[in-house]
Amino acid sequence: MKKLVLIRHGQSEWNKLNLFTGWKDVDLTEQGIQEAVEGGKALLEFGIKPEVCFTSYLKRAIKTLNIVLDTMNLDYLPVYKSWRLNEKHYGQLQGWNKKDTATKYGDAQVEKWRRVFDCRPPALEDNDERNPKNDCRYKDINPADLPATESLEDCIARCMPYFNESILPMFKQHDTVLIAAHGNSLRGIVMNLRKMSKEEIIKFNIPTGIPYLFTFDDDLNLLEHRFLADEETVKKLMEAVANQGKK
Amino acid sequence: MKKLVLIRHGQSEWNKLNLFTGWKDVDLTEQGIQEAVEGGKALLEFGIKPEVCFTSYLKRAIKTLNIVLDTMNLDYLPVYKSWRLNEKHYGQLQGWNKKDTATKYGDAQVEKWRRVFDCRPPALEDNDERNPKNDCRYKDINPADLPATESLEDCIARCMPYFNESILPMFKQHDTVLIAAHGNSLRGIVMNLRKMSKEEIIKFNIPTGIPYLFTFDDDLNLLEHRFLADEETVKKLMEAVANQGKK
Repeated sequence: MKKLVLIRHGQSEWNKLNLFTGWKDVDLTEQGIQEAVEGGKALLEFGIKPEVCFTSYLKRAIKTLNIVLDTMNLDYLPVYKSWRLNEKHYGQLQGWNKKDTATKYGDAQVEKWRRVFDCRPPALEDNDERNPKNDCRYKDINPADLPATESLEDCIARCMPYFNESILPMFKQHDTVLIAAHGNSLRGIVMNLRKMSKEEIIKFNIPTGIPYLFTFDDDLNLLEHRFLADEETVKKLMEAVANQGKK
Repeated sequence: MKKLVLIRHGQSEWNKLNLFTGWKDVDLTEQGIQEAVEGGKALLEFGIKPEVCFTSYLKRAIKTLNIVLDTMNLDYLPVYKSWRLNEKHYGQLQGWNKKDTATKYGDAQVEKWRRVFDCRPPALEDNDERNPKNDCRYKDINPADLPATESLEDCIARCMPYFNESILPMFKQHDTVLIAAHGNSLRGIVMNLRKMSKEEIIKFNIPTGIPYLFTFDDDLNLLEHRFLADEETVKKLMEAVANQGKK
């Protein structure tokens, strides 16, 4: 049996301030650090031992992974980082308060920007310092591949080539792989693994800090999937995420 | 100009207890964490920006690197880990107090085990749980390559193939490379870069947490080398390391 584990980073400084974050590279809060520790403990408790790990270019995911590995005494594992696992890019919304945005544009518009599969927030201008083209960490990426805004569909479309071309081949060589990333890049992976529709994935909120385990047979047929926590905890955390954008 | 930066991890829990550590995977102390933060600040201050990083399989070096990168806001950089950058293996001495060992065997014997180029401490038995052959993190390494004890010569001999075959080719592709490792694996690199004799390298004590910068021309001819700190600080730290094993 082969195991793929997804973990969504815990609370970041901008989650706490209820700002749209996207590609802004904000740190974890103390609560976010603690969520990562708990994620590591859950993996230990369920006897899941990753052999190779993947994460994004954003420190809230990278540090979540580092903390999980340190909690498990697995600091030495190989870690691969890719910009393709980054959060959905929120374009001009990045840095805006979610409630203020809802007050200004209405719950319906914010809900569209957050939750309609192919709806993009207004794009960043080329000369905006928030534009990834102006960030030296992406200097080796083809500028045509870098987003100035993204719908969930766009986010999934740039995430999945990395999953298919880099993560899956590694998963074929190892029994257990861990991916620490973001709500929307992980949605892309979940949608594909569970063959969910657009409507289903939009309604599916991944709780933070809870390892999400997918089990496969040796031919990579999905056998089962479950969060490594009790049902009540998972339900509460999913609802908290769903309600973030409301006035 | 190309830059190679070495940094030796700061104080670990067993440094603090004055125990021989070797491959034992002990954590950084609060002081060790602070040393790593200062190392990151020194790199920022001197305008040195790594593009790719290397470290060992031991968490005191890995976490030093993670802290340096986080201090520099470079968490996203690629990090390669290799057992070949591990500290010198101290065989049966691992876990022994340096002062007690000096009291029992005499300063001269301890000095030999620590500082004679080709002198190995007593080897671990095959069935000793401290033997790397019994540690799952080394399960993919050819057991014949794994040490049960090491002289400084042995340590350098297993470190340098990784430096030559993995680090150097990457250094040719990038302007600035950072290696976070240990007193003796870094000695191997320093000895080779500076073409030092056995006698010279034995007397050369690398201070902890101070970035050690080597500058090269584009053909990788060494131009200069310096610690990124004032002379007085470097001298004091070198002396502190040299005196660790005394009664």
